[in-house]
Parts: sequence; C-alpha cells; structure tokens
Amino acid sequence: MDKIEHIGIAVKDLEASNALFEKLLGVPHYKIEEVASEGVRTSFFKSGPNKIELLEATKPDSPIAKYLEKKGEGIHHIAFAVADIVSEIQRLKGEGFLVLNETPKKGADNKLVAFLHPKGTNGVLVELCQEIKES
Amino acid sequence: MDKIEHIGIAVKDLEASNALFEKLLGVPHYKIEEVASEGVRTSFFKSGPNKIELLEATKPDSPIAKYLEKKGEGIHHIAFAVADIVSEIQRLKGEGFLVLNETPKKGADNKLVAFLHPKGTNGVLVELCQEIKES
Repeated sequence: MDKIEHIGIAVKDLEASNALFEKLLGVPHYKIEEVASEGVRTSFFKSGPNKIELLEATKPDSPIAKYLEKKGEGIHHIAFAVADIVSEIQRLKGEGFLVLNETPKKGADNKLVAFLHPKGTNGVLVELCQEIKES
Repeated sequence: MDKIEHIGIAVKDLEASNALFEKLLGVPHYKIEEVASEGVRTSFFKSGPNKIELLEATKPDSPIAKYLEKKGEGIHHIAFAVADIVSEIQRLKGEGFLVLNETPKKGADNKLVAFLHPKGTNGVLVELCQEIKES
C-alpha cells in the first residue's frame, strides 16, 4: 500500500457537492467521470498527493444509491494505491481478507480496482487501485 | 489543505484491529497514544505520506463510544494537514462551514486540531490538523 490514493464520499447532488468541496478544499474539481457499469457519476479533487472522489448515483439500484438510502451521505470507501494489484490481491487473500474482485476491474480515473469486503476490515470498504499504464 | 494527513477509523478492540491493519497495510503500527480528555486510545500506521489512525473508546460516554454504539465500526473522520490552522479556521468560517473548535485544541500525534460539523460537509466529519513545532 503506497499511499491513500483517494477517499470516496457518497453524495446526493454532485453539482451542489462540487461547489461545497471547492470551498472546503480551496480548489475546484479537475474532472467529472461517469462509470456506467457501476451506475455512478464521480468528480475528483486533488489534495496534495491524494484525491477526494465524490460519488453520485445515476441509477436507483446502483451500489451508491443503496448506500445513500441505508446510511446517508458520507465517507463511502478508502482507496490505497498499489504498484501491482494482482499480487496484492493474492497477498491479502493469503492473509484471510475477503476480496470482492479476484480479477481487478476497470474503475474511474484510469485505474484497475478491487474491493475488500468491509466485514473483514472493521466496517471499512477498502479499495485497491493501480494506475493503468499505456502500453 | 496540503494533503490527507490521516483517516480515523473507530474500532471496538484496538489490539485486534492493530493485528488486522498490520496484515492489511503490510506494516505494524508505529505508536499508541491515549488522549484522556477525549476518552480515546489511538494507534497509528503509515501509508506513504499518509496515516491511518485507529480509535478505541476508553470511556462509555466518549465520542468514539457513542459513535460505535450508533454506527458501528468504520471510518470516523478524515483529517487534512494545514500549514496555519488559525487562518484556515477563519477561511472556512467565512465560507459558511460550522467549525466546532474555533480555538484549536491539542490532539493526538503532536497536532493542533479543529473539527467541522458533518452537517455542513455532506455527512463527513472533517478534521484540520497542524503539526506542533518545538519552539
């Protein structure tokens, strides 16, 4: 785990939250990206070496919509940057963690991602992410 | 906001969670510190330029005990490093954020800290922290 790559925050209204987080962080978001397969629209802010990702649901049955319904707005997950996501998944499986994506999937922001089940991590939804390099 | 200084995670059993997060992060915690005034015992892990702070309640009426009772284990707050906490508090008040500590208080890990009310930040408990320099 090289660093905290980003913190994901579930919000109801991406435009309103973009304005709020611009005031909070002192910088505007630098991109908006939709991940249709996950039913989510995201925006990203930089905070030094780290990022804040805001997550808005685009479908009523998406994971973020269900999260908002159950828990309301707030911190949804913590993502760690890893150099080699495949070997990290193997290492964590060996340590007994429940990896939700044994094969990493394409996430937002040009990343391969995999999640760990929060039941095995003190209630924290942990994401691993590896930058996709152009070949 | 210079970077994510740390993520605070509320846990029920600090020793068990220290062992779990050592497996997750691949490094052991580097210190344990009790903040008696807050009724909390904390441990810290490094993740590159960032930290993970685990928080265990030491009193049944402490903020972390109440959080655990209401929401269970999980991510409790996100802390941003700031160079000048007093001016940052003034800036955020001017932007309309509800600052819970208008005068910064002494927190764990040699920091001056102040919190923003989560009602004004999409449900996210935000901490500002400034390293205390030896004079």
